[in-house]
Parts: sequence; structure tokens; C-alpha cells
Amino acid sequence: MPMENHRDLPAGRSSGEKTGKLLLIGGNEDKTGEMEILRAVSAEAGGAAGRIEVITTASSEPEKAWEAYERAFREIGVGYAAPMHIRTRTEAEAPELIERIAESTAVFFSGGDQLRITSILGATPVLKALRHHFFIDKRLVAGTSAGAAALTSTIIYDGESPEALRKGAVMMTGGIALISNAVVDTHFMTRGRIGRLIQVVAGNPRLVGIGLGEDTGVLFTGGRQFKVVGSGLVLVVDGSSIGFTGVFDVEHMETFSVEDVRVHVISSGAGYDIETRTFQPPPAREPAVPARGETPSEDL
Amino acid sequence: MPMENHRDLPAGRSSGEKTGKLLLIGGNEDKTGEMEILRAVSAEAGGAAGRIEVITTASSEPEKAWEAYERAFREIGVGYAAPMHIRTRTEAEAPELIERIAESTAVFFSGGDQLRITSILGATPVLKALRHHFFIDKRLVAGTSAGAAALTSTIIYDGESPEALRKGAVMMTGGIALISNAVVDTHFMTRGRIGRLIQVVAGNPRLVGIGLGEDTGVLFTGGRQFKVVGSGLVLVVDGSSIGFTGVFDVEHMETFSVEDVRVHVISSGAGYDIETRTFQPPPAREPAVPARGETPSEDL
Repeated sequence: MPMENHRDLPAGRSSGEKTGKLLLIGGNEDKTGEMEILRAVSAEAGGAAGRIEVITTASSEPEKAWEAYERAFREIGVGYAAPMHIRTRTEAEAPELIERIAESTAVFFSGGDQLRITSILGATPVLKALRHHFFIDKRLVAGTSAGAAALTSTIIYDGESPEALRKGAVMMTGGIALISNAVVDTHFMTRGRIGRLIQVVAGNPRLVGIGLGEDTGVLFTGGRQFKVVGSGLVLVVDGSSIGFTGVFDVEHMETFSVEDVRVHVISSGAGYDIETRTFQPPPAREPAVPARGETPSEDL
Repeated sequence: MPMENHRDLPAGRSSGEKTGKLLLIGGNEDKTGEMEILRAVSAEAGGAAGRIEVITTASSEPEKAWEAYERAFREIGVGYAAPMHIRTRTEAEAPELIERIAESTAVFFSGGDQLRITSILGATPVLKALRHHFFIDKRLVAGTSAGAAALTSTIIYDGESPEALRKGAVMMTGGIALISNAVVDTHFMTRGRIGRLIQVVAGNPRLVGIGLGEDTGVLFTGGRQFKVVGSGLVLVVDGSSIGFTGVFDVEHMETFSVEDVRVHVISSGAGYDIETRTFQPPPAREPAVPARGETPSEDL
């Protein structure tokens, strides 16, 4: 039983919480420069003591996807990182992979097509091991692009702007279910995707829409609160205050009206609580300190 | 004095209001099919009795722009339509044009670059005549794309997504000022422009952001309330409920956070009041009437 020994491993870094940490990235994160986001993955995974498994299932070119992360994680100084090129549901039963997930400190999903992740990994032993890793061992899961979009209970897998606000134009399915009440969209600014999240929250205001810009991520703690990391922006779309809603009253691909969707723009350092639906401001900036030689004269 | 005789003309159709009607279109309106929006322009202009002047100043190919409208308005049956190819500030002083505006029932601004409209027409006699036409004679003004974006007091003239939510990335200037407390953006869904309007309303929540989809327009009555016409969507972005706002606290081109922007999705038949900032639902749909032969048996 390959999963037996995971209980002997040191507990995850966020073991006081209900789940492990979850780092969702909007795609196209820096892999050659400062690598702020991949450094955050490494830090949360334990750095030189970390063991990161990279699941490339979303990608149609898994070897190429892995090479970029191999280089980046080596440069950052991650202790161990290895790929899991799972291409079929049968491969997702391999005891060796389940063993490796049990021993890992982080599992990272690379990008591609989220429907590959859900249709290949759904209801497999590898996914069961992943859920144990996250909910019982409380260890890190991270994902970028499709690898981030796939990880909530309900996910978007297709449906491009500008048609995204026509009824039924956003394709949704069941996801990996590490978080319940949110739907994540990625490449959010570059692809103008707010229509997709408005359609999602109009369909059911229980779901909080989280739109991740590129090279930008949200680090969830305990499955509930997140802080933004990276160079771009996150838009939160909250439908709980919707008044008039016309979506049930029109035909497929018709336009509809929706009154009062709340949007929060969140950049590095600020955050959000998806349970209380409250914006969390960034820490106050330090007052500017005059540079050397610029100290104002006390005479003035 | 060419403007003398305008008072002898029949009053505009909305003379009980504070201004004429204003029809702002998101660009790319249908000019060859059903032409729902151009038919609305014609109807508001008086149809067969209407006189529409088309100002092509925004366009770098004014003759081409005019040809499409000439064909469309002729097909619809507008009584009179003619172009004003104003290319220089000097041309915008011509008494003949001022006379024609005084006699028109509608002035229509075609698309192109809104900065051409404001920089060429600002503070000219033609614009003075236009303001008289709208505010005193209470006659229709319409515009599409740049011709819609140019007509508020403060306007956006440049700054593309995805960078639009970085401080200072949205270029603004003074507009034609037919409406004061709104900023209009066009081609809104196709170009993913919500970031531009969020930056505008974060900069000053007094301004209501109106994002117009293509082949979609808003018909303002009295400079305050509008109804949506056309095949697409309008997004209203209201910053009056913004709590935390970080825009003044970051450097040029940095990202910032903004708490609680309200967004309304508005499609044909619904509307909005920019003064009270309230969504106006569409008329209730008629209950479905069974088609002939489908009448349910009274026995059931």
C-alpha cells in the first residue's frame, strides 16, 4: 500500500488550517527572471528540503512544459522536483505515482487544457492521493493556467469573450474540488475574460469568481482567505448582491441583464476572504524616508 | 447670422426634457441587414422628415465612412442625410455648416479617432452650433465608436487592455461635453476593456463608466436615463461604493487595489439612470402563448 508511509512525514507547513495551502496562478509566470511566483511555490514547499511533483497532464507537450519548470526550480534551489507525465486514466493508477505524491511537499499542475486534467484524473487513485495530500496532510497544491482553473469544484473549460455574456456561452464542468465556492479564470487581463465570470456568478451567486492575471497568483490559506502575489492583478467577481437577474428568462445565446455585480481589483499584498466575501487591504505603506543628502533643512 | 433661423424650426421630439436625446453606439453597428440601431437614429431624427448631418471628422477615410451611412440611411428612408467632412479647425468655422446644423434634426458622429474630434472641433463655431442643437433646440445627437466616446465631458482616447489597470495607463482628455458625469467606452466586449473603465471610476467615482458592446447603443433621454438598444450588451461600472482605494498610493504604471466596484450588465430593453445610479429592468416578458394547435386540452 504505497500511501501508508505518508503519515510518518513531517506535517505540512499550514497544519493548523483545515487544508493545505493552495497557490493558483493566472498563467505565463516568470520562469527565467526574478521568478517571484515560482520562488513562492518553492518557499511554501520547503525550499531545499522541498519535494515538488509537477503534473503535466494538461499539456499536449508535457516534456517541453516540464523542461521549463525543471530549469526554474533547479535555479531557485528546490531540493527535488520531478514530472508526472500522466497521459491516460490507467497511468493515473500507478502505485509509484501515489507513493511519490504521499512523499511530496507540493504538487504543481502545469498549464494546457483543464478538460484534460479533469477527464483524465477524475476519480483516479492519483487524485485520491492528491486530496489526501491537501486535506489530510495539509500540504501545498499549486497550479498555473489550466492547472489553476481545474482545481475548484465547478470550473470553466471553454467559451471565449466577446460572446461570453450570452446565455450558455461559457462551458463549465466539474473540477478537482480542492475549493468549493469559487471559480477561477486565468490569463484574465490579456484575454478580457470578465464576461465569463459574470456569467458564472449570475448563474449561481454562491460561486465567487476569481480572475487571475498573468504572472499573478492567489495564495489560499485554509481554503478560504487568499493574498495576491506577483506582478499583475486579480479581479474578484461577487454576485451575492445581484438584484434583477434575467438569465433564466432568455433563450440559449441571447443576451440578458444582471443588476449589481461587485468587482474588486486586487494587487500584490492585498487579499480577499471568499467565505465572508470581504476585501482585505494591503499592509499600509511605510511613510517615504528622504534619501541621504535630501534630508530637509530644519530651518525651513 | 446663419444660426438665426433655427428657432423657426419645429421643436425636437424630446423638448420637454433638459436636452435632446443622445444615442451612443459601441461601434460596428449593422449597416446592411436589419439595421436596428440606424433605424432608431432615423426614427428619433424624424424619419422621412428627418435631416441628418454626418460628421466624419474622426475618420482618416471620411469619404468611405460616409458612403456606408449614405447607403444605409437611403435604404431606411431618411428624408435627408449629408456628410460634413471637417478636416481642419478653420473648416469648422464655415457658416454653411453652422446653418446646416441649425436646420438639422440629428447630428451623427462616425467612428475613427476621438482625439481628432476633440482636437479639431473643440471650441469652434461648429461645436457651438452643436451644443445649441442639443441643449437649446433639444434635438438628437448620435455617435458610434470614437463618435460616441468623444461626447462626454471627460473621455478616454487611448490605453489598451491588458495594461489598462496599471496606474496612468488610460489616456484621458476633455470631450464634447454633452453629458457630464459619465465616460463612454466602445467595442467593449470584443476588446476586453473593463479595466479602462475601472481605472476611470477609481480615479474619480463621480464618473459612471458606460461600456458599449458592438452593434449596441444607449439612448439617453434628458441627459440622465438611458435604455439599451441593439444586439449586444452594455456594462455600467459604478465606483460610488468603492471602499479601499490604492490608486493615489502607487507609482506610474504600478498595479493598485480597489474595493467594491459595482457592475451592471444591461441588454436590450433594460436601462440605467446615471444620476440616481439605478438599474432599470426590462419590461416583463409576456407569458408564453401556446402556438396554434398546441393549446393544452382543458381536460388535463
